[in-house]
Amino acid sequence: MKGKLIRFTPFGESHGKAVGVLVEGIPPGIRVELDELIGELKRRKGIPRFSTKRKEEDTPEILSGVFKGFTTGTPVAVVVWNRDVDSSYYEEIKNTPRPGHADFPARIKYFGYNDYRGGGHFSGRLTVAVVIAGYFAKKLLEREGVIVRAYLKRIGSVECPPFDPEELLKSPNQYCPNEDAFSKMIEEMESARKSGDSVGGIVETIVFNVPPGLGGPWGEDIEADIASALFRIPAVKGVEFGLGFSFSRMRGSEANDPFSIRGGRVVTETNNHGGVLGGITTGMPLVVRTAFKPTPSIYLPQRTVDLSRMEGVEMRLRGRFDSCIVPKALPVVEGMVAFVLADHLLRRKAWEGVVR
Amino acid sequence: MKGKLIRFTPFGESHGKAVGVLVEGIPPGIRVELDELIGELKRRKGIPRFSTKRKEEDTPEILSGVFKGFTTGTPVAVVVWNRDVDSSYYEEIKNTPRPGHADFPARIKYFGYNDYRGGGHFSGRLTVAVVIAGYFAKKLLEREGVIVRAYLKRIGSVECPPFDPEELLKSPNQYCPNEDAFSKMIEEMESARKSGDSVGGIVETIVFNVPPGLGGPWGEDIEADIASALFRIPAVKGVEFGLGFSFSRMRGSEANDPFSIRGGRVVTETNNHGGVLGGITTGMPLVVRTAFKPTPSIYLPQRTVDLSRMEGVEMRLRGRFDSCIVPKALPVVEGMVAFVLADHLLRRKAWEGVVR
Amino acid sequence: MKGKLIRFTPFGESHGKAVGVLVEGIPPGIRVELDELIGELKRRKGIPRFSTKRKEEDTPEILSGVFKGFTTGTPVAVVVWNRDVDSSYYEEIKNTPRPGHADFPARIKYFGYNDYRGGGHFSGRLTVAVVIAGYFAKKLLEREGVIVRAYLKRIGSVECPPFDPEELLKSPNQYCPNEDAFSKMIEEMESARKSGDSVGGIVETIVFNVPPGLGGPWGEDIEADIASALFRIPAVKGVEFGLGFSFSRMRGSEANDPFSIRGGRVVTETNNHGGVLGGITTGMPLVVRTAFKPTPSIYLPQRTVDLSRMEGVEMRLRGRFDSCIVPKALPVVEGMVAFVLADHLLRRKAWEGVVR
Amino acid sequence: MKGKLIRFTPFGESHGKAVGVLVEGIPPGIRVELDELIGELKRRKGIPRFSTKRKEEDTPEILSGVFKGFTTGTPVAVVVWNRDVDSSYYEEIKNTPRPGHADFPARIKYFGYNDYRGGGHFSGRLTVAVVIAGYFAKKLLEREGVIVRAYLKRIGSVECPPFDPEELLKSPNQYCPNEDAFSKMIEEMESARKSGDSVGGIVETIVFNVPPGLGGPWGEDIEADIASALFRIPAVKGVEFGLGFSFSRMRGSEANDPFSIRGGRVVTETNNHGGVLGGITTGMPLVVRTAFKPTPSIYLPQRTVDLSRMEGVEMRLRGRFDSCIVPKALPVVEGMVAFVLADHLLRRKAWEGVVR
Repeated sequence: MKGKLIRFTPFGESHGKAVGVLVEGIPPGIRVELDELIGELKRRKGIPRFSTKRKEEDTPEILSGVFKGFTTGTPVAVVVWNRDVDSSYYEEIKNTPRPGHADFPARIKYFGYNDYRGGGHFSGRLTVAVVIAGYFAKKLLEREGVIVRAYLKRIGSVECPPFDPEELLKSPNQYCPNEDAFSKMIEEMESARKSGDSVGGIVETIVFNVPPGLGGPWGEDIEADIASALFRIPAVKGVEFGLGFSFSRMRGSEANDPFSIRGGRVVTETNNHGGVLGGITTGMPLVVRTAFKPTPSIYLPQRTVDLSRMEGVEMRLRGRFDSCIVPKALPVVEGMVAFVLADHLLRRKAWEGVVR
Repeated sequence: MKGKLIRFTPFGESHGKAVGVLVEGIPPGIRVELDELIGELKRRKGIPRFSTKRKEEDTPEILSGVFKGFTTGTPVAVVVWNRDVDSSYYEEIKNTPRPGHADFPARIKYFGYNDYRGGGHFSGRLTVAVVIAGYFAKKLLEREGVIVRAYLKRIGSVECPPFDPEELLKSPNQYCPNEDAFSKMIEEMESARKSGDSVGGIVETIVFNVPPGLGGPWGEDIEADIASALFRIPAVKGVEFGLGFSFSRMRGSEANDPFSIRGGRVVTETNNHGGVLGGITTGMPLVVRTAFKPTPSIYLPQRTVDLSRMEGVEMRLRGRFDSCIVPKALPVVEGMVAFVLADHLLRRKAWEGVVR
Repeated sequence: MKGKLIRFTPFGESHGKAVGVLVEGIPPGIRVELDELIGELKRRKGIPRFSTKRKEEDTPEILSGVFKGFTTGTPVAVVVWNRDVDSSYYEEIKNTPRPGHADFPARIKYFGYNDYRGGGHFSGRLTVAVVIAGYFAKKLLEREGVIVRAYLKRIGSVECPPFDPEELLKSPNQYCPNEDAFSKMIEEMESARKSGDSVGGIVETIVFNVPPGLGGPWGEDIEADIASALFRIPAVKGVEFGLGFSFSRMRGSEANDPFSIRGGRVVTETNNHGGVLGGITTGMPLVVRTAFKPTPSIYLPQRTVDLSRMEGVEMRLRGRFDSCIVPKALPVVEGMVAFVLADHLLRRKAWEGVVR
Repeated sequence: MKGKLIRFTPFGESHGKAVGVLVEGIPPGIRVELDELIGELKRRKGIPRFSTKRKEEDTPEILSGVFKGFTTGTPVAVVVWNRDVDSSYYEEIKNTPRPGHADFPARIKYFGYNDYRGGGHFSGRLTVAVVIAGYFAKKLLEREGVIVRAYLKRIGSVECPPFDPEELLKSPNQYCPNEDAFSKMIEEMESARKSGDSVGGIVETIVFNVPPGLGGPWGEDIEADIASALFRIPAVKGVEFGLGFSFSRMRGSEANDPFSIRGGRVVTETNNHGGVLGGITTGMPLVVRTAFKPTPSIYLPQRTVDLSRMEGVEMRLRGRFDSCIVPKALPVVEGMVAFVLADHLLRRKAWEGVVR
């Protein structure tokens, strides 16, 4: 969210007046199509059946930084107003932190001053900020031919089998290029929903046409920057590139990607490294996987404590919950990855401008 | 490496004059024991049998920021001189990028101006910088009772079975608290070594006595900051907290950690989340796992390209390589985690100083 | 505007939907009184006679980060809506850059995509952002007894004669503690107004009860941070501390402030250095002067160029201009100084929390 | 010192092992001529008669980031070793802070842990870091035709009369283009030296061939960034651009620079604004003045306090002092200005790379 040249900051609370984002450093001249942006925000609402029943229009209001349909180069503030808010329940449970939520540590961190209604600033609703910021980043990347695409790699026990990356670009299914796997994922989510439970999953992101040479060692490592961005998404508990954790079981002779020449360009014959070596893009597709925990809001009874009396209690949550947030996360993950790449692309342009 | 209040920057090249680190923002009054620091650097040399045969004293020379045995509060520059350098071979292979290494993307990024000898600035040797910076961070954390401890969770196919975290503090074996697993890890590394190959692994880090309330949402997320730091270590390809990727297969009812009261304190009965909820520490032990790929330098033949002639070639590396770098990585991983925690601890003190 | 721990970012355009500010890092628990904040914004409107006739309510709408009357610790977004906007004239003059304004260089910087209406993002109207951010900073400083007070040191040829700093705290006149000088300043502004011209001035800021030890050398220099903040205010062309430029004519024997003990505390007998030595506060009142150029919008004819035809033209501006912006700048200057001090105070608390 | 894309950090202490600098973000391919760099460092020694008698070779040792005579693009660490150090005197006076020096506030800031010998990290000797970092920045700017040149505008009561900026480029005298004024400045310094005193002055810097469009409003303001850099130089107490403080006495009709066309380019007929409007360069020469106080080390008796006994004492300093540091400051001021400009130039290239 904070690159060297671009930066975005989410603001707002779930039950406050609005959520929004301030995006800084976006170059001038990017065409802003409100319909496209609304479309991206719609993707963030996920599959209706498995998503919260809270009804929000989510129509973005651009307050600054866009003029005559183009970015101006000055800070872009975008607000999405909260309409369908009912906070009474949260007053009731404010002393009983919900398991798996940030309620308890937030209370410590903010010395009790945080807005606890609906998770406040920790609400998943804040991810509209990422989608909006990501929209500008994607538009910038598109000019250079770079395309960021995320899909459901896993929901619970169902995993999408391997496929040729190019298929992702052609898939009519926006969630998963394998229809069969997607049907089973729907079943998995349905099963969680019916039992008043939730289920986790994995998002895999593939970036096409990444120019080689983005990133660097140490402070410039592009894997570090992408991971840093992805872990900021609520519910993310793991990030890996290329073969990721599977590398730990391997020998170097299996892991190394051999180089060869294809069409006059240097490529690797395999892409175990997910398009990054030494923190720098190689020009192969960038592949990153993000693990999401099941959303912690469930209807089943849970043990927690009453902080006002400092004793254990059982709690049963009421409200409007997602049974699976992973489908909604796709544009959020894409937005984060796009934002980091856009920052590194701009830095690259800076060097190209003086070195050549 | 770049927190809000503390920062460190590695510098140097494998075959240059020196490697070193600049550490900024460390508060004054931290007692610096050169023997301790040398001890930490010795840990970074790993198990001799599986480590490079390059002979370096690795005696740190502190150039600034320490006076009469204490940090002064001004920037600390520490240098470790390179002595045992033989660069002739690297001139020979400078046009044939080694598979799995940064050679190729570095050449693009730096327009051919990078120091390619021994990997230059990308060399694992640069991790001395992390160990040195981590030393200062650990000393700061120790004052508050916070202890950072890493061990080998996996080497190739061998995994250390689960254990009570407290055992880690008592274990006489500095690599792995389970002697049996450790013996098998040694065998795995020996097997890789004998076949001229290398092997990957996983480091698990447990932080004890973490105060609750460190971190925050979005820009302050402590998981994001730790992951960002860990991915900057060469060869790291995955990071997960608590159950990490396993969360993706779970239901919320299994994943959520119930709260209860123990000894007048709020705790969670399980610690699936690895001590972090909503990007903020809960007060439970922080648990993070880091996946390392097998070191790419192997003696087996590999396919690559000759960039001067743009054609494929077979290459057989000569030199002094690690067959497994994971044991050496323990103090490096600890250093990174400690550094991030120290920054967040300082930020916490800032708020405590004005809010209470 | 960007400290290590707190940060604020103005957004908006003069003739866009709104202007506003995002304030990050403000600790939780600061009591927010909307009346006080409105009062500060009213000060920014200056002396009606010499200020623009544009009528704006300037009622701030807090979108986030404040809950039940206190800051929460998460980002605070505040918006002030633009109502009284008439942009037609600016379409007319968009190709003829106004002398002394940012029109021309902004057009280059933003490749022509900038919002040129009323100066767009460069408008003095954006200083509402500083006043709002400064409000939070002042409230934080007040808890520690630190008071930031700015007054008119000079308007055109009229200078306020020296006085005992404490008088500033007691002065009923919010612009200048010397009534006689203030009357003459009014005359100076009136004279400029009548001739269709504008006039510049100097704001002096005195900070009372500054704790010693804030700031540092190089990257932590508090003079550098304050100057950096002040120069970001439109129309500022000079900043000096203590005797400032007059030091250049002096001998060391006159310039050095002798130390002595007063009431058990170390003080300096004079305060030539304006409370800062080596970039660190000494505990004496901090004194900084800021030079403002006359506002460039005047009614007199001026020479400029028509960029569409690339030829010289004469232009006579129409519109609603300030004849002197310096009185309006007082809360803006205070806000900037307070913001920098608040950041340094927080950093100090971080060290105090671990060193003692 | 901390731009968005480049950054440098001075380290070291006056009586420690070394002083040095870490320079980050410098693009690869900049030719490094050690002789040139040594020449720049020699300029920093000033006019021998008025400079400290401490004898240091000041031969820079480049530890990293330069390979085969070119920058590599990775961090550049440069060290200058301290040889001629005698610290005994400073032990003697460590409890009696020298007036005008940072001794007292530094003791507070660092809780007494700072290296007090010779001013430690506050020593003017640390300016070698700026000269070194500035060298790289100048080389980068030169490629784009940008030239940064500083001269003595004032020493005590002697001011260099106005001249055509171009003369500065042709002047054989490296301190001041007006030989007559320079002779009088020498007399002024001689007079201060003879009386055991010191004298202050003003450095004016002119930057030629600055491209228009560098900088921006608020967070990107180039005046703010330059001022911030300049105030970090020890002994600087004021900074102004163009007419600076004189603007405060003026009317808008006198202050505004009329635009006109010259040689097909937009220029201003006067350059009162010193080449910056709205925080952005206009393409006219950038003009900035920096006020230096007289160096506080003098041989005359001064009043101070003994902090161990908390009572007033008279002190007479012994040692090797500069009677005027302003001539030595020229390459330091140039270095700071060049560094900021280089950062903004790189940012500009980033936008140019994507907008056009």
